[in-house]
Formats: sequence, structure tokens, C-alpha cells
Amino acid sequence: MTNLQLSTDLRNIDLQHINDDECHRFQGTMELIGRRWSSAILLALTRGAERFSEIRAVIPGLSDRLLSQRAKELEGAGLIERRVVASTPVQISYHLTQRGAALMESLQPLARWGQQWGDAPR
Amino acid sequence: MTNLQLSTDLRNIDLQHINDDECHRFQGTMELIGRRWSSAILLALTRGAERFSEIRAVIPGLSDRLLSQRAKELEGAGLIERRVVASTPVQISYHLTQRGAALMESLQPLARWGQQWGDAPR
Repeated sequence: MTNLQLSTDLRNIDLQHINDDECHRFQGTMELIGRRWSSAILLALTRGAERFSEIRAVIPGLSDRLLSQRAKELEGAGLIERRVVASTPVQISYHLTQRGAALMESLQPLARWGQQWGDAPR
Repeated sequence: MTNLQLSTDLRNIDLQHINDDECHRFQGTMELIGRRWSSAILLALTRGAERFSEIRAVIPGLSDRLLSQRAKELEGAGLIERRVVASTPVQISYHLTQRGAALMESLQPLARWGQQWGDAPR
């Protein structure tokens, strides 16, 4: 366990140059997407859900209230956008922004880590 | 904004095959590392900090109490290990496990996303 096989890249290059601002920003991102339901909502949009009811349908246990709240947070973070078509009745849909799509791409290795390493031991 | 340039890989392959178990596991991981200070502590260990005092020294604002608490959580998740050398005084050190090191590797693209996209608009 002493030889952790950390790549030189990880140990010496990228991380050594993350400054305090970047650290705080990273922390903020982790807190936002770590909040319960956030990543599930982003995943639902990535998979093509657009309407409020479509998002709820693919996330068992998510309430209307929490979906509204998380959607506002994700919109505030510039990860999703809410589109309103002024028809009767009004049509509302949610979409990943480019920023949000890039985030989902960057989460792929983390999803693979979860598949590879599974649940915590003990 | 309609063409989100999601890779085929992201849209059709990996994510379509994440099942409910994997979704919940991923959510759990995100919540753990999204908890305040968790990622900072993992980063400190990645950079070579080992002793309690060394970890605190590189994370301004982190209290003894919260460091103890987070260290226990991260140990429970199998991401770090606590080594005790029975000398006088007892020597305690913290180290990334292979699981934890793999997690830090997988977070690299996310760190790059933060650098590239910066803070949320508005």
C-alpha cells in the first residue's frame, strides 16, 4: 500500500498548481453536484428528459418540491437552462447548457471509478 | 445551444447502462466527496501531507474537530487509511488507499472543468 501508483501527472503537475481560488471553486462544484438529487437530475437531462414530469418519472423518490429547488440551483450555477414557450398551456422544458454538458463529460471517469471499485469495504 | 456536442459515448453508451444500484452508489460518492473539507483533505494527502498537523497546516479554516470527523468518514469509505506506530509518543499518519488514489485520478477531468469553465455566470 506504500506504492500508490499515483501518476506523475497527478502528483507533481496538475494538483501542485491548483491555487486557493481553484480549490474553493472545486469545493463549490463538488458540493453542488454532491447535493442529493443534483447528479440524478443532470443525468436525466443528459439522457434526454426535458419536461418536469419526464424528469420526475425517471427519478424514483424525487418530490416536486425538491425537483423545483434543485432545478433552480442548477440553473443558478449555469448548468441547466429553463426554456419557456408562451403557448396555452405554457410549455416549460429543461436543458443542459454547454457548461453542464462539459461537466457531465468530466464526470465520466468518476462514474467508471464507482463501477470499478464498487461500494466501500466493511 | 441545441447542439450540445455531447459525445456519442456519453449519450448512448455509458450512461444508458448505469443501473439503479450504480446510480445510488455514484450519488453516495458524490455526497461524500462533496461534503465540506473532504476533497481538500484528499488533496492534501495526494500532495504528501501525512500527519494530522500537516493536513491542518495546508487547509486554512479546518478545525481539529472537523478534520477528525472527516478523516473517520473517509476511512470508513475506504479512501484513506490511518496508520499507528506504537512509539512514544504514538505516531499517527494518514494515507490514501489505492481506492482513494484511483478516486483522485478520476477527479482530474472535473478539476480541469473547473479551471476551464470558471465560476457560474451571473
